[in-house]
Amino acid sequence: MVVLLKKDPNKQQLEGLISWLQSKNIEVHPTVGQTRTILGLIGDTSVIDIDLIRALDIVEDVKRIQEPYKNANRKFHPDDTIIDVSGVKIGGGNFAVIAGPCSVESEEQICSVAESVKASGANLLRGGAFKPRTSPYSFQGMRADGIRLLLEAREKTGLPIVTEIMDAEQLPLFEDVDVIQVGARNMQNFELLKKLGKLDKPVLLKRGFSSTLEELLMSAEYIMAGGNSKVILCERGIRTFETATRNTLDLSAIPVLKELTHLPVVVDPSHATGIARLVAPMSLAATAAGADGLIIEVHNDPTRALCDGPQSLTPEAFDSLAKQIRHMQAALA
Amino acid sequence: MVVLLKKDPNKQQLEGLISWLQSKNIEVHPTVGQTRTILGLIGDTSVIDIDLIRALDIVEDVKRIQEPYKNANRKFHPDDTIIDVSGVKIGGGNFAVIAGPCSVESEEQICSVAESVKASGANLLRGGAFKPRTSPYSFQGMRADGIRLLLEAREKTGLPIVTEIMDAEQLPLFEDVDVIQVGARNMQNFELLKKLGKLDKPVLLKRGFSSTLEELLMSAEYIMAGGNSKVILCERGIRTFETATRNTLDLSAIPVLKELTHLPVVVDPSHATGIARLVAPMSLAATAAGADGLIIEVHNDPTRALCDGPQSLTPEAFDSLAKQIRHMQAALA
Amino acid sequence: MVVLLKKDPNKQQLEGLISWLQSKNIEVHPTVGQTRTILGLIGDTSVIDIDLIRALDIVEDVKRIQEPYKNANRKFHPDDTIIDVSGVKIGGGNFAVIAGPCSVESEEQICSVAESVKASGANLLRGGAFKPRTSPYSFQGMRADGIRLLLEAREKTGLPIVTEIMDAEQLPLFEDVDVIQVGARNMQNFELLKKLGKLDKPVLLKRGFSSTLEELLMSAEYIMAGGNSKVILCERGIRTFETATRNTLDLSAIPVLKELTHLPVVVDPSHATGIARLVAPMSLAATAAGADGLIIEVHNDPTRALCDGPQSLTPEAFDSLAKQIRHMQAALA
Amino acid sequence: MVVLLKKDPNKQQLEGLISWLQSKNIEVHPTVGQTRTILGLIGDTSVIDIDLIRALDIVEDVKRIQEPYKNANRKFHPDDTIIDVSGVKIGGGNFAVIAGPCSVESEEQICSVAESVKASGANLLRGGAFKPRTSPYSFQGMRADGIRLLLEAREKTGLPIVTEIMDAEQLPLFEDVDVIQVGARNMQNFELLKKLGKLDKPVLLKRGFSSTLEELLMSAEYIMAGGNSKVILCERGIRTFETATRNTLDLSAIPVLKELTHLPVVVDPSHATGIARLVAPMSLAATAAGADGLIIEVHNDPTRALCDGPQSLTPEAFDSLAKQIRHMQAALA
Repeated sequence: MVVLLKKDPNKQQLEGLISWLQSKNIEVHPTVGQTRTILGLIGDTSVIDIDLIRALDIVEDVKRIQEPYKNANRKFHPDDTIIDVSGVKIGGGNFAVIAGPCSVESEEQICSVAESVKASGANLLRGGAFKPRTSPYSFQGMRADGIRLLLEAREKTGLPIVTEIMDAEQLPLFEDVDVIQVGARNMQNFELLKKLGKLDKPVLLKRGFSSTLEELLMSAEYIMAGGNSKVILCERGIRTFETATRNTLDLSAIPVLKELTHLPVVVDPSHATGIARLVAPMSLAATAAGADGLIIEVHNDPTRALCDGPQSLTPEAFDSLAKQIRHMQAALA
Repeated sequence: MVVLLKKDPNKQQLEGLISWLQSKNIEVHPTVGQTRTILGLIGDTSVIDIDLIRALDIVEDVKRIQEPYKNANRKFHPDDTIIDVSGVKIGGGNFAVIAGPCSVESEEQICSVAESVKASGANLLRGGAFKPRTSPYSFQGMRADGIRLLLEAREKTGLPIVTEIMDAEQLPLFEDVDVIQVGARNMQNFELLKKLGKLDKPVLLKRGFSSTLEELLMSAEYIMAGGNSKVILCERGIRTFETATRNTLDLSAIPVLKELTHLPVVVDPSHATGIARLVAPMSLAATAAGADGLIIEVHNDPTRALCDGPQSLTPEAFDSLAKQIRHMQAALA
Repeated sequence: MVVLLKKDPNKQQLEGLISWLQSKNIEVHPTVGQTRTILGLIGDTSVIDIDLIRALDIVEDVKRIQEPYKNANRKFHPDDTIIDVSGVKIGGGNFAVIAGPCSVESEEQICSVAESVKASGANLLRGGAFKPRTSPYSFQGMRADGIRLLLEAREKTGLPIVTEIMDAEQLPLFEDVDVIQVGARNMQNFELLKKLGKLDKPVLLKRGFSSTLEELLMSAEYIMAGGNSKVILCERGIRTFETATRNTLDLSAIPVLKELTHLPVVVDPSHATGIARLVAPMSLAATAAGADGLIIEVHNDPTRALCDGPQSLTPEAFDSLAKQIRHMQAALA
Repeated sequence: MVVLLKKDPNKQQLEGLISWLQSKNIEVHPTVGQTRTILGLIGDTSVIDIDLIRALDIVEDVKRIQEPYKNANRKFHPDDTIIDVSGVKIGGGNFAVIAGPCSVESEEQICSVAESVKASGANLLRGGAFKPRTSPYSFQGMRADGIRLLLEAREKTGLPIVTEIMDAEQLPLFEDVDVIQVGARNMQNFELLKKLGKLDKPVLLKRGFSSTLEELLMSAEYIMAGGNSKVILCERGIRTFETATRNTLDLSAIPVLKELTHLPVVVDPSHATGIARLVAPMSLAATAAGADGLIIEVHNDPTRALCDGPQSLTPEAFDSLAKQIRHMQAALA
């Protein structure tokens, strides 16, 4: 961290600041120039509240130079984390395809999609039981019943299941779920993150649609600081001015995150684009960019899906995409 | 709602769509041109899931022309809503100033700030007990103790209190709170909104920093659909590419919202800009633009605030700002 | 400027960097910590190409701490610049209202609007002769004829004129124009800026709709570096995800710019919002926030304007707004 | 186009609007519901100024349903356009790699890079002679001398050259250049686009960093409307709130553009990300997403590049990337 002081700082305040920093085990290296003084802070600055320093009268600006996250930081954990989801590995060279419908609608629907995506090579089954919808008048998901149906589909196919939680109160229902998904809108629901940090269960953490990569990592840090290090990061598009797609899928996030953190990174092209026709090219692009997995919506009747229909592939389209991905991976290996 | 069909739509599917719409009491008016057919839908289209229609094979695009919110819509409720907060009115010409520290830190701190802002003319007291912080290592607020201290400050000064909830589980602690604040990060925490919809207590709903005004109104609609119509909207800045301020305060939101809805609209210039020096000009600007109130951070020791220090005014600066606001309001009246 | 070195930097490269910096009259203060070395650079770092340093193998990151602009910087020119436009002053407490139609359409139109806005108290006349339009099929302006008509309107009313240039080739036509406007799309047309830097004529420089305030000041610096210090900055809205207004008017830009620079700052609420109903509240807000002037579209027949009609006030609405602004200014004085 | 009328529209104005539309050969289909009337407009609405209609008193809103571009529209030109650049084909299945340094610096530099990228399989040579720089104090390019050196490098290697124009005045210098590049900042420099529309020479048009895809196509339309149909579109990243990369590369733009237009689409991962380490993964991703080519910065001495150093690959890194791209293309074919 670097602190730029104002011209002619009050001596007493400056000494106060320096001794406060030293009490936190931070080395302070002042650089006195002809017109300006800069303090270089060296040590574990993640414990320092940057705004507190910025508020001081004698300070003009503060710049953080080291990352404020530790558990998620690759610098302190150079090897890739491999997350084992009931036998399916993600990360460290293990590529996982998570597929399934946007919402669970019926036993027949979820089981038939599960069998179909399994036959095409999917490794996990996704399906929404609790659905975050912008409108209170839209379908809100089958909730507890939806989770029950997902567990049935797992029993039939052996595919571990991934489904979204919307409130910590729902946690008891998620006891048998293999991966708990935190949606983009809850990425900074810190109370929920803290509770997930106390579990011993993988969490798929989606990037908020207006969150920076550093904020995503800080949210992972909330979970990891509680003791749960099984976090899978998910890029799902960010909000921009462009209206041709629902959100703008930020594929640079993959190589950037893989430098900054050891956690696996998967990509959700279905929600990012909101358009089924774009799912295949964006899935291939994400794979080529180095993603550890994909989460793809597949529906056995896309034209009648209860929600998010426009972004779901048919099982046939998914099967053909899964093949292309395998060919491409073989070529890049 | 207007549905643009693809060229030569399948007749059977088209009839299916039309009869499904009619079953929802929507009048369907097809316009057949030489090259294209458009369906004009007239009726209560807020019950229609737009994505469902967009998913159909025969549909090229769908445009919503009427607002998807009803309870919050000025068209169905032309008069301004006036919210009575323990005797203090907001909306319909009643301007309210909500002031206080970012975080509650001690009894002495909160009571002294409360007395000072009351003397300067503030109508309500704000103060954070539960604090949403990006880092798990930052101060998270005094929590239950903070609420207790706020209630003491109310007892001493008579100012009703506004404080933020972060999780529905905390609701019992908010029983005596006058206004429950929903922070920007929780604007789309739909489970929380539903629970607040069952209370008979004013809710101050902050705009998510990447939420559109329509989404803000849809979140208000979640609360109102449950039966609680006491919603105060709050503009607090949106996330943009500009880095000179923490967020970009969107003051056009005031006149736009006041056209679309009858709910009161207040502005938080402190969090939007993140810089104390900008609070006074942005407060005056928000007032000039027609806001129904302001929510302003005031701290008795800005240089030592535990969080968000850089954006807090001193009591003296707040007093002088409160006077300027009154002068300006008199001139514009 | 602060340079964070990678761990164990190559000694020879480090010495090379330090002596290169010293050759540019930059003092280099290394801070050697247990794990990291930071170089504090003190001196005129505006001459340093930050990307050049960032590209070095031994460098992890570089942060600029001082502003890269000099002529526009208030630190080196503490007093407000007052620009004299043919007798009308802008800046340093002088508030100017620039009003007129979006496009010049006919002699009758421009003269009648000019007389009307003059009667309401406008100080300068605006009107587009060259019109930047997204579509090649839209009306592109009356061009040379439009400028001729503006000059006639000036002759009749005495109001100095402001009109937009779109290409340096058009400069000869602007010889008698009082203020040359550079539109948002040309804010980084550096070749044009360089040519305007050689004139002795005020330039109204609009912020690009995706430009930071620092970039706006760097574009002003292009003009000023050439010798022309008569630059008026104009905030006209930035591009965000919000679709309720055409752009998001960033009124915080006013107090931020006025801290960073001595140049006058005016606001264009008409183009920012794109909606006539929002022009009055946003004009009042901009004035309350400390703007040095406003640029407002007024049309004598808003429902038949050839372009940008939705954002133009009628002369009556403009007259009433001008009165409100004067009342508010009196109250805030 | 669909026009939503206000309640109880003035009859005379409505008739005026309808007959004006009919005079432009637009069929008008009114849909009269119980509470609202909608006008469906069918015909060539690209000639209609949408703002003109929106300005009318009787109109509540207007939505465009068909694209406002014609020459660039795939609907009217279903086959891919293949552009022949001095023998090198781009589009319609022809993939082109454009490589070279950010700036031309010397004869030795440009010729050695040209030879090296040719050996690695590049099809065209890029290099900046005129450089748009944010600061007037940064290196502005070798200008005319730079173009001369590019032509020498072409002579030596046979690679056609691509270089950026910044002002129409520079056109005579570009007579022998194979592809004229229009930079992101000039995407809406309409006067320049009009002049390029009169040439018979390929233009590589970069997307403005805050331009929608529709705006990019409208700028292509400016060039094509003048008679020059040789336009190559280039995605190079858009401005968002994310700061980990210089811009956010929008790879969804590739499949979206390829649906909307028949023009070839290339991607510039170097400028988008601003970080050399990200160029390889983003190049592979762009190729997987269906791009018709790549434009990649390669420098023979990345640590001493005069500008944009951080984003340039070494020749060795480029060679290895070029091989990977070919493998991947073979696998996807």
